[in-house]
Amino acid sequence: MITRDDIEGAARRIGAHVRHTPVVQIAPRLWLKLELVQHTGSFKPRGMFNRVLANDVPPAGLTVASGGNAGLAVAYVGRELGHRVAVFVPESTPQLKADRLSEYGADVTFVGAAYADALEASKQRADETGALFVHAYDQPEVVAGQGTLARELAEQVPDADVVLVSVGGGGLIGGIAAWYAETAARIVGVEPIGCPTLHAARGSGGPVDVPSEGIARDSLGARRIGVIAWEHSAAGHIADSLLVDDDAIADARRWLWQEARLAVEPGTPAAMAAVRAGVYKPEPDETVVVVICGANADPADL
Amino acid sequence: MITRDDIEGAARRIGAHVRHTPVVQIAPRLWLKLELVQHTGSFKPRGMFNRVLANDVPPAGLTVASGGNAGLAVAYVGRELGHRVAVFVPESTPQLKADRLSEYGADVTFVGAAYADALEASKQRADETGALFVHAYDQPEVVAGQGTLARELAEQVPDADVVLVSVGGGGLIGGIAAWYAETAARIVGVEPIGCPTLHAARGSGGPVDVPSEGIARDSLGARRIGVIAWEHSAAGHIADSLLVDDDAIADARRWLWQEARLAVEPGTPAAMAAVRAGVYKPEPDETVVVVICGANADPADL
Repeated sequence: MITRDDIEGAARRIGAHVRHTPVVQIAPRLWLKLELVQHTGSFKPRGMFNRVLANDVPPAGLTVASGGNAGLAVAYVGRELGHRVAVFVPESTPQLKADRLSEYGADVTFVGAAYADALEASKQRADETGALFVHAYDQPEVVAGQGTLARELAEQVPDADVVLVSVGGGGLIGGIAAWYAETAARIVGVEPIGCPTLHAARGSGGPVDVPSEGIARDSLGARRIGVIAWEHSAAGHIADSLLVDDDAIADARRWLWQEARLAVEPGTPAAMAAVRAGVYKPEPDETVVVVICGANADPADL
Repeated sequence: MITRDDIEGAARRIGAHVRHTPVVQIAPRLWLKLELVQHTGSFKPRGMFNRVLANDVPPAGLTVASGGNAGLAVAYVGRELGHRVAVFVPESTPQLKADRLSEYGADVTFVGAAYADALEASKQRADETGALFVHAYDQPEVVAGQGTLARELAEQVPDADVVLVSVGGGGLIGGIAAWYAETAARIVGVEPIGCPTLHAARGSGGPVDVPSEGIARDSLGARRIGVIAWEHSAAGHIADSLLVDDDAIADARRWLWQEARLAVEPGTPAAMAAVRAGVYKPEPDETVVVVICGANADPADL
């Protein structure tokens, strides 16, 4: 598990490289943490900078498997810190996503039909060349880096009672749960019905493989919850795990645009959808924060 | 002219109705004021709430001429405070904009070929019914309300040396200039070459009619600068007036999306364009704030 000390260390390492992202009070007891304005359009650089800055990076540079936000973040970190970056993606990855990785200077390799193939290839690259392997969500430095979001938030909204977080592989909620572990604030994970990594783990007593289906699978479709996030869940640091359907997610995405001109990616509004659809019902005197964690999608369909 | 006392009064009146909008540090000495998350997607409700709350509103309600952000804001204010709203728009106004006004419960009337016709009709409505006339940008309560943005900003970025503001009719820059009038901070207006209301006034010694051309004319295409804004300019409260071309505006709009996932309307990035295109060159030790003032546009073309 991750400690506050780990997160404090991460904050010192990455402070000069990531943005301190703002919050906005959108309704009397409802705040949004606007992490979409982070570099590369998601929270991921926090963890990726910490992973890289906490380790010696050999000439072979960095290696990661991800055609999504994790890959973008590692590519950005590599560019900013002057490291080579090898990104492995499944053959099904759209060329547009590969092009964005290439724009940051990363070498992109298409491999295999499934994410597991890309993951294996990225680890193999690390074994063969000594490149530093960066996991998309389940390494201690990565989770501690994501936890720096909570460290900021605790100063910005000190009276937060509940923090709602969209969950994919669990890197973000793991870090947030770690920061708030010794406090009265409750951390609640929200997932699409089609990608229930945390919910399934909590029902099964441990991480299990789940399908990745529905409109948010590109953002949140990990095969299973990370071990670190699971440990925080099992320790009681995650108060609840909720599911929302695709209609609720689509409604919340439109609502975020209409209400606050936030053009987010399809996975991001899961947490907001829990409030909008009444899946999470705040108590009258509760202060709720919803993390707006990413916006890497074409806004054309808003 | 507007005083700090006027703005303090406005802040007390509107505080419960408008959002305290956040800032984000986007580069070492560059901040953005994220006013796009304000209700209705622009800064306009600040001034409109102040105009309405500072006056008695008769049963006939409110009247305004604007198919754009000012109209939306008055429609929103009317809905929130329970007043009837009559909005007059030129016949060229797209049905989509009229529909959005109707969604807020406003009565929309198409009249005449030019904005001047709609303006005349809205004043006539006030004369005939006693409805409270709300000007889009050139009434003391409106300008004082817009000035509350600067009051927030001065707390958020106390060391701001320069504030760059996109200018249309001058309601926003007038209020900002009024707040900072007695300080060392310099307020700089930025306009598209095709809609140079402030620039032309400064060149002519007073407000003059200008054309409204180019990609930002929907947002910034006033016929002439407001008298209140002009008085602040003439008093030296606006340090400079800069022009940017459409290519620079389009580039800045894309940059705001790529760099910070802000999907803004075409007029908004004029201020940012001045920095991006080198029209405004900050001194090395200068702290610059760019106001991101609106996002009422289809993000499909980003």
